[in-house]
Amino acid sequence: MQFRSDPLGEFDLIERFFKTPANAMASKNDQTITLGIGDDCAVFKPSEGEEIAITSDMLIEGRHFFANTDPERLGRKALAVNLSDLAAMGAKPLGFTLAIALPQADASWLESFSKGVFAMAKQFSCPLIGGDTTAGPLTISIAAFGSLPEGKAIRRSGAKVDDDIWVSGTVGDARLTLAALRHEINLPLEDLKQIEHRMHEPTPRVELGIHLREIACSALDVSDGLLGDLQHILKQSQVDAEVSLDQIPKSAILQKQNVNIQNQFSACGGDDYEICFTAPITQRNTINQISKSLNLPLTRIGRITAKNSGLANLRLIDTNGDLLSNTQTAELLKSFDHFAK
Amino acid sequence: MQFRSDPLGEFDLIERFFKTPANAMASKNDQTITLGIGDDCAVFKPSEGEEIAITSDMLIEGRHFFANTDPERLGRKALAVNLSDLAAMGAKPLGFTLAIALPQADASWLESFSKGVFAMAKQFSCPLIGGDTTAGPLTISIAAFGSLPEGKAIRRSGAKVDDDIWVSGTVGDARLTLAALRHEINLPLEDLKQIEHRMHEPTPRVELGIHLREIACSALDVSDGLLGDLQHILKQSQVDAEVSLDQIPKSAILQKQNVNIQNQFSACGGDDYEICFTAPITQRNTINQISKSLNLPLTRIGRITAKNSGLANLRLIDTNGDLLSNTQTAELLKSFDHFAK
Repeated sequence: MQFRSDPLGEFDLIERFFKTPANAMASKNDQTITLGIGDDCAVFKPSEGEEIAITSDMLIEGRHFFANTDPERLGRKALAVNLSDLAAMGAKPLGFTLAIALPQADASWLESFSKGVFAMAKQFSCPLIGGDTTAGPLTISIAAFGSLPEGKAIRRSGAKVDDDIWVSGTVGDARLTLAALRHEINLPLEDLKQIEHRMHEPTPRVELGIHLREIACSALDVSDGLLGDLQHILKQSQVDAEVSLDQIPKSAILQKQNVNIQNQFSACGGDDYEICFTAPITQRNTINQISKSLNLPLTRIGRITAKNSGLANLRLIDTNGDLLSNTQTAELLKSFDHFAK
Repeated sequence: MQFRSDPLGEFDLIERFFKTPANAMASKNDQTITLGIGDDCAVFKPSEGEEIAITSDMLIEGRHFFANTDPERLGRKALAVNLSDLAAMGAKPLGFTLAIALPQADASWLESFSKGVFAMAKQFSCPLIGGDTTAGPLTISIAAFGSLPEGKAIRRSGAKVDDDIWVSGTVGDARLTLAALRHEINLPLEDLKQIEHRMHEPTPRVELGIHLREIACSALDVSDGLLGDLQHILKQSQVDAEVSLDQIPKSAILQKQNVNIQNQFSACGGDDYEICFTAPITQRNTINQISKSLNLPLTRIGRITAKNSGLANLRLIDTNGDLLSNTQTAELLKSFDHFAK
């Protein structure tokens, strides 16, 4: 089939923007991929003794990103949020499929978008192996898969009493960026410039996840807000926990805000894509060494306090060392939920 | 987390409609699935020596289905089109992930939709292992994966000179249904009732695909129109072919239409989800036996005529045994293409 100039046909779109770069991409995983784009399915050969982790996420214009979002950044982020899920299981990326709906076949938009997707794919040796393009409201749906040694997946359900609760990097800057862009908060431009990449270009913590396979009891990635997400660990592990709001790691920019904003954004802001995990106290030294070797802060924010076969109970400690009341806690915990506003 | 009545929150949606049935579903594949819905990723353990086939498709309201489509049928079809891709590779379904965007959390719609999805999942032992729900224009994106013995994937690129070209079932009824619903054609209601399931509830030819692993040289599923899809085989196999329009299998209902409509709809109508494959002449008896054992017509419609390292050449023979001109062929071959209208 020949390339037409405009409008682009579906097969042209796939060939022009998505087929060539994937095939050209040098990747350690290429030997795993038996068959890439261009057939009814992609085919890959897992290594012996490996398990396969699989995740899928859908990003929608106006809901997960602004209509005028830079397409290259959007391409990076669309893959990053899926790699973040793989990281939270301790999985090493193997490949991904991309389904995309576009209002029209816009060559320059697609060129930038695919550039961003492939930059992220190359960085994490995760080739595109299948795709689907269609006309429709701008929607990006990616399924990514990765490999794990058998039985080594880090589950949400593994937290144990007395585990430390840890979080990587800092949290709250993605929410602070959103607040500035929405004019909810008046943030100086130089401050915004320093943090806005946290919202637009999150970094999946893939290496951290792989290191944590033998160390963490439970883990997840922080996409909807730290404490809201932590509650999934508590619920699935049937445990209670205590978290000190003061200990939640915040950037220097966020620390310029008042304490209420600091607590709300770091505890409940979404879109940070850091890893929250629990690990035995005996692993503290090892975890601090991992932090140094990855040049990534890893911070203890609390601990698992007790078994609980009913509703998991999360106790929060404020700046003065006082326990927050149930009302204060509930107010803070209004986590991001797509339908419940 | 407690169930709220309305509006449903995201986590409620997943739990209420998608989590329980998957876990409850008895399936031969359950032993393969290490970890289902509810974590950052699903995890599965491939059997030794197996390869994994993966496909993803996105269905959008107004583009791939009407706004008023029965949600139960839509659920069946959304999974069926992905299983059809697995079938075309000869893969046995293992599981799938579902990402869905909904304008609002409509409990009765979701109940019907999930009923359809799970009916199809159960029929083909293909459990739901991960999901993502979000607010947005109605969009359904599924990634499905299946298993294959190593090296046995049936590729589009494997067609050989002198292969017979076969197609399963009949083709054109999905397009005829669409034409009737659009009032392009005046079809008696009793006729419409007999064929409309072909558009709304396609049957993935999973058993056929598995049987063809050792027999077919190339295969794909017919989603965009038989001859348009066949050209992907020709292009990727670098071969020419000859197809007799008369031999393309048509239902008794389609055969009531005039010859032009019969040819157009059977040769180029989309959405049939039959399997088109090529196989050596020596396999004719075996293929006829498979047809009998599956109670599924398998029809020879032409043959691979020559190698061709340039643009693949498809020659069409009409009812009178005459070769169609290039202009006539081009006119007929205007295959369904999402952007090119």
